[in-house]
Amino acid sequence: MLDVIDHPPGIRELRLARPPVNALNAELLRALVGAVKAAAGQGAMVMTGQPGLFSAGLDVRGMLALDRDGVSEVFVELWRVQHAIAHSPVPVVFGITGHCPAGGTVMAIHADYRVMAQGDFRLGLNEVQVGLFPGGVIHGAFRRLTGGHSPQLLTRGALIDPATALRVGLVDELCDAAHVATRALEVARELCALPRDAMLRTRSLVRKDLMEMFGNPGHALMKEREFATMGAEAWFAPATQELLRRMFEKR
Amino acid sequence: MLDVIDHPPGIRELRLARPPVNALNAELLRALVGAVKAAAGQGAMVMTGQPGLFSAGLDVRGMLALDRDGVSEVFVELWRVQHAIAHSPVPVVFGITGHCPAGGTVMAIHADYRVMAQGDFRLGLNEVQVGLFPGGVIHGAFRRLTGGHSPQLLTRGALIDPATALRVGLVDELCDAAHVATRALEVARELCALPRDAMLRTRSLVRKDLMEMFGNPGHALMKEREFATMGAEAWFAPATQELLRRMFEKR
Amino acid sequence: MLDVIDHPPGIRELRLARPPVNALNAELLRALVGAVKAAAGQGAMVMTGQPGLFSAGLDVRGMLALDRDGVSEVFVELWRVQHAIAHSPVPVVFGITGHCPAGGTVMAIHADYRVMAQGDFRLGLNEVQVGLFPGGVIHGAFRRLTGGHSPQLLTRGALIDPATALRVGLVDELCDAAHVATRALEVARELCALPRDAMLRTRSLVRKDLMEMFGNPGHALMKEREFATMGAEAWFAPATQELLRRMFEKR
Repeated sequence: MLDVIDHPPGIRELRLARPPVNALNAELLRALVGAVKAAAGQGAMVMTGQPGLFSAGLDVRGMLALDRDGVSEVFVELWRVQHAIAHSPVPVVFGITGHCPAGGTVMAIHADYRVMAQGDFRLGLNEVQVGLFPGGVIHGAFRRLTGGHSPQLLTRGALIDPATALRVGLVDELCDAAHVATRALEVARELCALPRDAMLRTRSLVRKDLMEMFGNPGHALMKEREFATMGAEAWFAPATQELLRRMFEKR
Repeated sequence: MLDVIDHPPGIRELRLARPPVNALNAELLRALVGAVKAAAGQGAMVMTGQPGLFSAGLDVRGMLALDRDGVSEVFVELWRVQHAIAHSPVPVVFGITGHCPAGGTVMAIHADYRVMAQGDFRLGLNEVQVGLFPGGVIHGAFRRLTGGHSPQLLTRGALIDPATALRVGLVDELCDAAHVATRALEVARELCALPRDAMLRTRSLVRKDLMEMFGNPGHALMKEREFATMGAEAWFAPATQELLRRMFEKR
Repeated sequence: MLDVIDHPPGIRELRLARPPVNALNAELLRALVGAVKAAAGQGAMVMTGQPGLFSAGLDVRGMLALDRDGVSEVFVELWRVQHAIAHSPVPVVFGITGHCPAGGTVMAIHADYRVMAQGDFRLGLNEVQVGLFPGGVIHGAFRRLTGGHSPQLLTRGALIDPATALRVGLVDELCDAAHVATRALEVARELCALPRDAMLRTRSLVRKDLMEMFGNPGHALMKEREFATMGAEAWFAPATQELLRRMFEKR
C-alpha cells in the first residue's frame, strides 16, 4: 500500500503502492499521515509512485460503497495528510511520476518542491467537474503557487499537462517519467547538503503563509471537522452522486 | 454597434460592432453595461470582436470633441462596464480577436477567461503613454492576473504581444484570430457543462478578491464618481490634451 | 570602483568597476548609495557592469579579514543600497551584464526593470548555501517579483539561468551580454519619454507595496540595525565561517 524506503543520507521515500492506480482511501491516507509524521527526524522526505503512475486521486469507486461516516473519514484523513505535509519539519519533495488529478494535486501543493513527469499526464484540481469544490485551505495553497492563473484553473476544474503546469507554477521541474523519482531524490539530497539551520530558517520564512492558512492549533480540529462535513455533504448531493456513478459506468 | 447572439446551450455572445475599430464611446459602453446585466440569466457570456479586430480602446477622436461632462460620462460608463463584468453572476469569457489596448484590456481583466488571437496584435494598459494612469481597481485587477510582472508593465505603459501576454498571465490561451470566437464559445460551453452549483461556488471563492476591490455597495457610487472625476481631470490636463491630439495628427 | 556616466536625455549610468569581479565591499556599496541618491534629479538611472560580468556579490574574501564591526558595516551599506534603490524617486533599470548571485540579486529586486544577459550566467539568492538567510525585506521583494516560485527558490538557495529567471519573473527581458547595457539604456530612455507625471504617479502606485516593506521612516534605522546585527551574527557562526573559508580554498 505504501512502501517506505530509506536512502542515504537520511532521505525517506514514501512510495505509493496501491495497485492498480494508487487510489487514495482512508487506509492509505492514514498510512501516509503516519509515515509523514514518522519522517520528522529524517533529513528530507520524497513522495513518489511508479513510473507513469502517481495517483488517480481519491478512491471514488471504493467511496461509493461507503456510508456518510465512511466518507467523512476519508475527508478527515485527506485533511490530515495535507496538514502533515504542510507542517512537516523537514522538506518534502514530490516526484509526480504520472497522472496526479484531484487528491494527488491536493497533497502536492503543500510540499516544498514538485518534479513532474513529462508526457501525456495530467494534474490539477478538477473536483468541480464532479460537483465537489475546493475549500479555503486548498484554494489558498493552490493560489500560493499558481497566482493569477489560479482563478480560471479552479473555476474550470482544469486538468493540465506538464508543460502548462510548469508555466503556471503548479510544478517546479519536468523530467522523463522513468527519472522522476531519481530526480526528486537528488533535489532532496541537495536540500540535505545545505547548512541545516539556514535552510530550515529560510524554509520557515517562506512557508509562514502556508501554515497560517491552517489557522492556529486551537482552530485545527474545528477546521478538520468543517472540511470533512462539507466534503461529505457535497459527496452525497444527488447531482454529485449521479456524476460519480456515471464516471464509472463510462469506464 | 453591439451584436447580441445567443448560442445553445444558453451562451450569449456580445460582439463589438462599431466600425472601423470598435472604439468605445459612452453609447457603446452603455450598451455593453446593459447587455452584460441582461445576460445574468444565461449560462455564460462571451465577448468578441471581428477576426483581427477587438477594440482600439476608448474613442479618443470622439472624446476630443466632448466637454468635461461628456468625458466624465465616458469614464462613468467605463467604470460601470468593469463593475458589471466583475459582478456578473455567470462566467464571462473574452475572445480577444485582435488588438486590445487600454480600454479593451481594462474590460478583459475582470473576466473569467481570456482567449487571445496570436499574431501581430497588442494588448495592455498603455494609458500612461498619453498621460492617463490606472486607478486602484484597474491596478488591482491587472496585478491579480499578472503578479510580479505587473509593476514594470504598468510603469512602462507597455503594450505586449500575445506570447508575452500568455507568459505574464494577462491572457490564458492563444489561437488563430479566425478561431478565437469559436474557441471562446467552446470554453463557455465547457463551463456550462460543469455541475452548476459547484462551479458557481468555486467561482465565487476565486473571485472574492476581485469583488472586494470594488468595495461594498455603499461605496460603489462614491468610487464611480471618483473614477470619473480623476479620469476627466487627467484627460483635460494640457499635457494629455497635447499628446492625444498629436496622436491623431500622426495617423 | 564605480563609473558614473551621463547619457542624454538625463539618464545616469552607474557602472560597477571593481576588478576582477565587481565584488561588493563597504566602500563600493557606500559609493553606490551616494550615487543612487545623487541621481534623484535625473530622468532615470541604469546600473550595469561589464559585458559578461555584473557582480560576484559580497566581497567574501575581503570580509573574511574583517572583524565584527567591519562585517556589520558591510551589511549596513547593503541595507542602505537596497533602501536607496527602492526609494529612488526616478526609475532604476538594471542591466545585468553577467553573473549576479546573492548581493547582486539583492540589489536588482528593488529596481523597476531588469534586462539580463543570456548565456551561461547565474543569478538568485543563494545565501542559504553558505549559512546565511534572507530577512523579511529581501524575502518580500523577491516574492513580489517571483510569486509562487519564490518559496522553492529561496529554500534551495537556487542560482538559476537567465531563461529560468525570465520564466519565474526574476528578470523582465533577456538579450546578448554585449547589448545588455544598450538595451537597459533604451528602456530608461522609453521611461523618460513618457508623460512624467502620469509615469511617476503610476510608478508610485505599483511600488507602494515595496516601500511598505521597509516600514515607515521612524522604523528605518531600527530595521537597518537589525539587518546588520543578524547579518553579522550569521556571518560569524562557526558553520558559516567554515563554509565561506572552504569556498575560497576550492577556488
